[in-house]
Amino acid sequence: MTKGAETRQVIVEEAIRQASVMGLGGLSLGDLAASLSLSKSGLFAHFRSKENLQVEVINRAAARFVEFVLVPAIREPRGEPRVRTLFERWLKWDTGNELPGGCIFISAASELDDQPGPVRDALVQTQKDWLGALAHAVRIAIEEGHFRKDLDPEQFAFEMYGLMLGCHHHARLLKDSRTFKRTRIAFEALLSAAR
Amino acid sequence: MTKGAETRQVIVEEAIRQASVMGLGGLSLGDLAASLSLSKSGLFAHFRSKENLQVEVINRAAARFVEFVLVPAIREPRGEPRVRTLFERWLKWDTGNELPGGCIFISAASELDDQPGPVRDALVQTQKDWLGALAHAVRIAIEEGHFRKDLDPEQFAFEMYGLMLGCHHHARLLKDSRTFKRTRIAFEALLSAAR
Repeated sequence: MTKGAETRQVIVEEAIRQASVMGLGGLSLGDLAASLSLSKSGLFAHFRSKENLQVEVINRAAARFVEFVLVPAIREPRGEPRVRTLFERWLKWDTGNELPGGCIFISAASELDDQPGPVRDALVQTQKDWLGALAHAVRIAIEEGHFRKDLDPEQFAFEMYGLMLGCHHHARLLKDSRTFKRTRIAFEALLSAAR
Repeated sequence: MTKGAETRQVIVEEAIRQASVMGLGGLSLGDLAASLSLSKSGLFAHFRSKENLQVEVINRAAARFVEFVLVPAIREPRGEPRVRTLFERWLKWDTGNELPGGCIFISAASELDDQPGPVRDALVQTQKDWLGALAHAVRIAIEEGHFRKDLDPEQFAFEMYGLMLGCHHHARLLKDSRTFKRTRIAFEALLSAAR
């Protein structure tokens, strides 16, 4: 990796960390430069605009999400074990130490849902990819005979993601200690109904 | 109502409208003054700080939520009809014309989850009240014999709210036209499992 590409990656990683707490709108090239002891003009030369930085934050976070959530699931046996691993790894992604403010895509969703443009487009793509990956894992679980033949994979993905959004809300905003227990009970009910 | 109280209410209603689109952090006393053709110093005299305005926005939106979602439910017969009405009225609250950017509490959740202070406290209270109202309606449905005796009302409320958060995400960010169909299918499954 060239020195320029390395610096760029350091900047984006720090931007992901900050955006998970303050939101994408809270990012500032000036504050980033200060926290990394870089010159503001140097940082500006890398990204040219806050919007470019925001798009790169979304795309780099999506690559991290793939590594952190999808790759471990693909290493599991096909079928229900993969669906379970997607669930467990997502919980770690959102509430572990991976990002200080939890899932950056959920915070960004509320910020960007009424703001058309390339940042929103990048975010929507991550969410479609994620829902597609969930539905795909469910489809394989049907093929393997773990889930019933007439299960709607997209409906399952919709309900599973709703559960995750509820988990995020309860854990991060309400700091409710029963969140994980409740989320797991609901997930087991979802799996039961799918078998 | 005095002239002062009336002006204050007009300001807060406009602030709710703007915050539902741009977030609470996007509120500015200057922009509000401009959009209402009021003097900025007059507006400042009403609220003294952006934080005070934000707290009042949350509390006034909560009062509107009670009128719009809870009151129609209480007018329904006790039990499952009330639970259903809470669900249907919430859908209207989030995706109808009540607020241009949808449920203001959900947008505020992502903004404020990592920002301790009185605005976050006010928001957390609204969410606890809402989850409490859902669980209470479920408890009545158990008493009425509509739902099974061993149902956990708080677990039901947790799952029902997760579904709503999923609906908000799919409708507002993904603009997915199947959202309402999917949300209703999931809600009917939740009711079935509760009976």
